[in-house]
Amino acid sequence: MAEINFSSVLVTGANRGIGLELVKQLLGRPKPPQWVFATCRDPKGAGAQGCLAPIKRGPVVLFPAESTDEGSIKAAAQVAEAHLAGKGLTLLINNAGIMPPSTLDSMTQEDMLSVYHVNVVGPMEVTKAFLPMLMAAAQQSTEKGLSSSRAAVINISSIGGSIGNPPSFRMFPVIAYRCSKAALNMLTRCQALEYKARGILCAAIHPGWVKTDLGTDKPKALRLEQVLACSKGQAIHRSLWEAGS
Amino acid sequence: MAEINFSSVLVTGANRGIGLELVKQLLGRPKPPQWVFATCRDPKGAGAQGCLAPIKRGPVVLFPAESTDEGSIKAAAQVAEAHLAGKGLTLLINNAGIMPPSTLDSMTQEDMLSVYHVNVVGPMEVTKAFLPMLMAAAQQSTEKGLSSSRAAVINISSIGGSIGNPPSFRMFPVIAYRCSKAALNMLTRCQALEYKARGILCAAIHPGWVKTDLGTDKPKALRLEQVLACSKGQAIHRSLWEAGS
Repeated sequence: MAEINFSSVLVTGANRGIGLELVKQLLGRPKPPQWVFATCRDPKGAGAQGCLAPIKRGPVVLFPAESTDEGSIKAAAQVAEAHLAGKGLTLLINNAGIMPPSTLDSMTQEDMLSVYHVNVVGPMEVTKAFLPMLMAAAQQSTEKGLSSSRAAVINISSIGGSIGNPPSFRMFPVIAYRCSKAALNMLTRCQALEYKARGILCAAIHPGWVKTDLGTDKPKALRLEQVLACSKGQAIHRSLWEAGS
Repeated sequence: MAEINFSSVLVTGANRGIGLELVKQLLGRPKPPQWVFATCRDPKGAGAQGCLAPIKRGPVVLFPAESTDEGSIKAAAQVAEAHLAGKGLTLLINNAGIMPPSTLDSMTQEDMLSVYHVNVVGPMEVTKAFLPMLMAAAQQSTEKGLSSSRAAVINISSIGGSIGNPPSFRMFPVIAYRCSKAALNMLTRCQALEYKARGILCAAIHPGWVKTDLGTDKPKALRLEQVLACSKGQAIHRSLWEAGS
């Protein structure tokens, strides 16, 4: 795989799981991005402090962002904009999400709405707030096609959102999450169609059952290069797992 | 197509559009159902009165139900249960829905959440409330397989919720609606998998661009038999339009 370079990356939900692992791998690259922005709800909170310690040693800018709070997202965008100083944001990874257990019998209206808020409305709002910076990156790039080294939005989805190939309910009793990820795939499709003309790649990916601090049994290692390998704007719900990870 | 018979049907959002047309066609059948339950938010409201006049002459029970209001749904279920007197509900058609214009640029968090509430959380709640009656119909039926004449939930979806084959944005700038219908398709898939063992068919359909009081140019006539033709539990997002309607 050709090496992918980018000067700036933002990862939401970076205090644990896939988000934290992505930030670690970004910082560990031979040629790390100039800016790695990492957001989570409360970076100063007791829970986040321990998790975030390993990444605090790198060239990373940590700031709070609650993806359901418009004011918080706008404030985060201003922080990033000040650091970028007109250079634009190359890559936005919308990773923040929740997956509470919910069955058809147990699920409430509040469950459905809160999961949708975080997993779908959040990525929509974050992308809107960072769109001017993504457009700046696309315009300034010497690349012409769509790629994650020019300007890209990667929405972290899941095979759990696959209507055609859903994992078993016994293993994965998370109805609200499944519905939200199907909707996130559609949002990504809309973003891909809409932002293509602005030079921004948009893709939803299923990272697989990966080895992070949140992983359980039989995980495989998350590999950053594969998350970034979405070089075609039409790639929706790409299964990296199935792609041989 | 073999004739489909059922003794009771509930149609939500019956005051106009596809819901109203379905109720009219149900009442116009050579052998109409014993009970046709039709719900809308405010059947006594000025707007609904004129629309509902044609169906008031038939054997139809009209009552209010706001699909985002749990209390209202439970009250509607009690009304239906009293009429059915233990016989069970054969067919639930979750038709109530909204489609406000929304683009990626204009859309707000409130738009996304309110459309999801009505179009996805509503059908989930209505189905839960009527599940005991659907199960009673399935148990009492002499049929063994899954069919809309034994016990069924039909969720009215749309090709607008198709990730693989979305209609053009210029013609159909309704992002919140698209996301909600993709999620509704997933909810239907979950319902189909979960309720199959209880003898209940669950399917999402795209009725096509049909001729109702809400239709615009070039519509085709809505045909009830096709809406009811979902005889396999795995039928998700079936395009009646493509199926030759």
